[in-house]
Amino acid sequence: MDRMKQQIAFLMEIDKVKNIFRQTYLADGKRKENDAEHSWHLAIAAFLLKEYVAEDVDVMKVMIMVLIHDLVEIDAGDTYAYDAEGAKTKRAREVAAADRIFGMLPEDQGGYFRELWDEFEAYESDDAKFAHLLDNFQPLLLNHESNGKSWTEHHVKKSQIYKRNEKIKETSPEVWEWMKQIVEEHIALGHVIDE
Amino acid sequence: MDRMKQQIAFLMEIDKVKNIFRQTYLADGKRKENDAEHSWHLAIAAFLLKEYVAEDVDVMKVMIMVLIHDLVEIDAGDTYAYDAEGAKTKRAREVAAADRIFGMLPEDQGGYFRELWDEFEAYESDDAKFAHLLDNFQPLLLNHESNGKSWTEHHVKKSQIYKRNEKIKETSPEVWEWMKQIVEEHIALGHVIDE
Ligand SMILES: [Ca+2]
Repeated sequence: MDRMKQQIAFLMEIDKVKNIFRQTYLADGKRKENDAEHSWHLAIAAFLLKEYVAEDVDVMKVMIMVLIHDLVEIDAGDTYAYDAEGAKTKRAREVAAADRIFGMLPEDQGGYFRELWDEFEAYESDDAKFAHLLDNFQPLLLNHESNGKSWTEHHVKKSQIYKRNEKIKETSPEVWEWMKQIVEEHIALGHVIDE
Repeated sequence: MDRMKQQIAFLMEIDKVKNIFRQTYLADGKRKENDAEHSWHLAIAAFLLKEYVAEDVDVMKVMIMVLIHDLVEIDAGDTYAYDAEGAKTKRAREVAAADRIFGMLPEDQGGYFRELWDEFEAYESDDAKFAHLLDNFQPLLLNHESNGKSWTEHHVKKSQIYKRNEKIKETSPEVWEWMKQIVEEHIALGHVIDE
């Protein structure tokens, strides 16, 4: 039962991401979203939006990738997408976290999760590109629903959003078109700074 | 873009399950868990615990099944596992919810989710049995971590837990063994009533 013991210890450890809050608000704008909720949302979106990305995408792999992509934040915390200071130390903090957290699992399963996390971080494969598309599109949709609340609070600029999303266009022109329309709408509304 | 519009409307609609709270507490015992967090946890557990159930289980299908199994609660609300009154009207409330919510999607995708939800509810296939095992095992683990808080609050009896979990033994003797040990421990501690 040692193997099951490790698996269960891991499952209880990752319960902690339910208390790691992001900067994005829920659609109703009433409170911020946590990492577990965010990841759940991305996994369903992975299944629903697969038709807009490369045909060879492995949807099950992408689902697992998005379900676990934020687990490192248990130790490293959430670094806001537009926090330049935090970004400098993010990588080192997250790698140490990945070592510890995925290291709790039996080697085959922990190794697989680590590979998926490394692939996600590298942001090069079609699967990783799809995962990042979801990771960027979902908060944009929530920002849209919540009247640009998080953008306004953080004085986010158009150039920051476009820089962060620069690979989306090649991953899916259709999704990028949708995202661009939302951003332009919120520039017009004054929620995103036009520079 | 009508198809994408439906998919996005659905994704924003289901954001509501992040505000549907269950009776189970998080592992730290500080607050109750919501449906999105619960479903996220089950999907990861589906991947990790597949070795304890029938070999022909379709893990990706089970992952999607658990990710969407509680969406009907957007309209129908969460019915506590041991709420006999609520159970009487649960089925009718949930079927109407499934019609509306899965009906928001393009027919192919909404139809697939509905099939998975029906299969889950029927609790007959190996995939559905695995999904129910996860749906019962995860809150039991959280109850264990949070010192039996939810069991104590609801005066839960051993016979209720055993009745609710009666199919787990055939789905996975190993998982059932683990669950039984936890229940017996909490009977000894007085968190579960020994009758
Ligand atoms: Ca339920």
